[in-house]
Amino acid sequence: MKRLSILGSTGSIGTQALEVVTSLPGEFQIVSLTARKNASLLADQAVEFRVSAVAIIDDSAAAEVQDRLHGTGIEVLSGRDGLLEIAGRDDVDLCLNGLVGGVGMAPTIAALDGGVDVALANKESMVMAGAYITELAKKKKARIYPVDSEHSAIWQCLVGEDRAQVRRLILTGSGGPFREWPKERLAQVTKSQALKHPNWDMGPKITIDSATMMNKGLEVIEARWLFDMEPQQVDIVIHPQSIIHSMVEFTDGSVKAQMGVPDMKIPIQYALTYPDHRSSEWDRLDLTQVGNLTFEPPDLEKFTCIGLAYEALKRGGSSPAVLNMANDLAVYAFLDERIKFIDIPVVLGKALADHPFVAHPTLEDIEQLQVWTGRYVGEIMKISRKDHLSEEPIGSASA
Amino acid sequence: MKRLSILGSTGSIGTQALEVVTSLPGEFQIVSLTARKNASLLADQAVEFRVSAVAIIDDSAAAEVQDRLHGTGIEVLSGRDGLLEIAGRDDVDLCLNGLVGGVGMAPTIAALDGGVDVALANKESMVMAGAYITELAKKKKARIYPVDSEHSAIWQCLVGEDRAQVRRLILTGSGGPFREWPKERLAQVTKSQALKHPNWDMGPKITIDSATMMNKGLEVIEARWLFDMEPQQVDIVIHPQSIIHSMVEFTDGSVKAQMGVPDMKIPIQYALTYPDHRSSEWDRLDLTQVGNLTFEPPDLEKFTCIGLAYEALKRGGSSPAVLNMANDLAVYAFLDERIKFIDIPVVLGKALADHPFVAHPTLEDIEQLQVWTGRYVGEIMKISRKDHLSEEPIGSASA
Repeated sequence: MKRLSILGSTGSIGTQALEVVTSLPGEFQIVSLTARKNASLLADQAVEFRVSAVAIIDDSAAAEVQDRLHGTGIEVLSGRDGLLEIAGRDDVDLCLNGLVGGVGMAPTIAALDGGVDVALANKESMVMAGAYITELAKKKKARIYPVDSEHSAIWQCLVGEDRAQVRRLILTGSGGPFREWPKERLAQVTKSQALKHPNWDMGPKITIDSATMMNKGLEVIEARWLFDMEPQQVDIVIHPQSIIHSMVEFTDGSVKAQMGVPDMKIPIQYALTYPDHRSSEWDRLDLTQVGNLTFEPPDLEKFTCIGLAYEALKRGGSSPAVLNMANDLAVYAFLDERIKFIDIPVVLGKALADHPFVAHPTLEDIEQLQVWTGRYVGEIMKISRKDHLSEEPIGSASA
Repeated sequence: MKRLSILGSTGSIGTQALEVVTSLPGEFQIVSLTARKNASLLADQAVEFRVSAVAIIDDSAAAEVQDRLHGTGIEVLSGRDGLLEIAGRDDVDLCLNGLVGGVGMAPTIAALDGGVDVALANKESMVMAGAYITELAKKKKARIYPVDSEHSAIWQCLVGEDRAQVRRLILTGSGGPFREWPKERLAQVTKSQALKHPNWDMGPKITIDSATMMNKGLEVIEARWLFDMEPQQVDIVIHPQSIIHSMVEFTDGSVKAQMGVPDMKIPIQYALTYPDHRSSEWDRLDLTQVGNLTFEPPDLEKFTCIGLAYEALKRGGSSPAVLNMANDLAVYAFLDERIKFIDIPVVLGKALADHPFVAHPTLEDIEQLQVWTGRYVGEIMKISRKDHLSEEPIGSASA
């Protein structure tokens, strides 16, 4: 039995991971679970899967969890410390990090530091500290298994292959709900429009990232680190049907692709059962039913977040971390209806241009940049409230 | 330097293989070449690649080759014995069998029997004697590398994977030049219409096989043996753009595909450089240029050859061999304009139904069946000349 911890067990990735675990009886033992604030679901999961320990980040929800688990013998931790404590324990074979946003970085580092392999759905970890994390994993002989459907696809295409013979990685993206909208209409995007992803069932933060296409930008950065590629070796192709999850082109012109129905349970399961494909009951792909797969280049004029991600990767150092932190803040501000959809890339562009650049950031540098970004984006929000923000050209603050 | 022999060096596969060899200087030493009757080209190739030996099958062309190579020190063999002599020599690391039709079977067996790995473009070898050949390869610890683009695709998708975790193989086919024709119009098909393949540049025999879709049927049989699958694990999907060369579906629903521009040099090169992808100057795939990939089920009513191939595989024993022999004869008869396009499946159906079935055919059995099939198909041709052949229902002779 493979022993697992699941960070973010009440979220989209976490609940689907538990579905996978249930579908493969006798394969996994769930040792620990963590959640942000859904006390009731976390307690239910803890009892159902007979875990040893849980952590709930929101202190105000901790009492409910303690109450619900009283007498079960299940250890209950709380707060950010509780999360990191669970993440850092080496009583598991694999830690599935299904956390959302930059908050997922420290637990990834804690797990790898304890020599535990990480199934990583939290792409922000690699975006913020890709150099540090890949180095740490190497040092601790721990492995990082991608969970993102795109990176799982690339990982699968690379099985048995020599990475030196890769010419480029081709990340596919659906183009999100605004692929066919004229650029001008983006000014009117509402929260509910942005939350309607055409193909994938995902949490709200990543769904907004898909709508701005920042998600694809973050994936470019993640791919650069996960697969040790040069930035210019990672390309994006728009593929609205989300059937081909990504591709690898080799030096001889041969291209391998991994496909499937758009169901996160398939890449989650692969990360849990790697290197094996286990029999499953998930929907199967029938290309004669799909009929048609289409491809087009991304519209970089409309989705400026993509360019910002390549720019951050080119600048290197602290740039991707700040871009990601600013994006976390901007997306939640949009979800809270504090800024407009088209303000998101403006906020990111300004933060990227204005931040105190560090060439080789330590974890302390990243923490300080988190404080800087929080303050800086907060200031920008004030401008946004007066509704002038997105009228300024991106990066103008750096002039 | 990898030492190569190329059987059928003046044909489509052979000439493209020599292009690959030229494009990778210092990688290969061509030890021997064989051709059917193109004396002039064979002699040119022998000199250019400084080979040790050549064989020309057509005895009447042997004199010209001897003449042209006089004084070069290059050994000149002739006839079927010469071909088998070259094929059976173990002075090479890899034998590329680019022969066309059932005549390619004996050289495949000769090479494997000598412990030499075979890059197999001659699918008829596996169709006629799949059980015998896979057993022989195992015994002699020799390997069979597929060259057909479909089987190369499957082979590439299986790199590093456990074959027990394969749910099914999905062979793609363009559907050939008559994909969109109504069934009734097939009665009017001319030789030049059938020789126009929409995507691939191949020799005439395989081009006709593509038009009847017998090619896909033969590939199903080949795949069954090459990858040790049950017949029902090999499916066909029509994909008119010929960009996805074939796919593998694993037990978890994950599907891997191999793609590329339709250029035989890519799978030829992979078979020669396996397990490496070498840098090459062949055209590269740009999916945003292709734009659109479509898929549909094969029309089994129109292309009855597909059903005959599955039927032969189901019956097993000598059935696939006889199907293939009858097909060789029928295709050349069509190319000689002795029978009509729609007569081809009728000839095959009759031969399949009427032949003296052998459950576990030896090579001697196959030779005797070759004689039987030649005589039987000859008889059928006489009926055909009276133009009644294709009016009889398929398999009626067995009733």
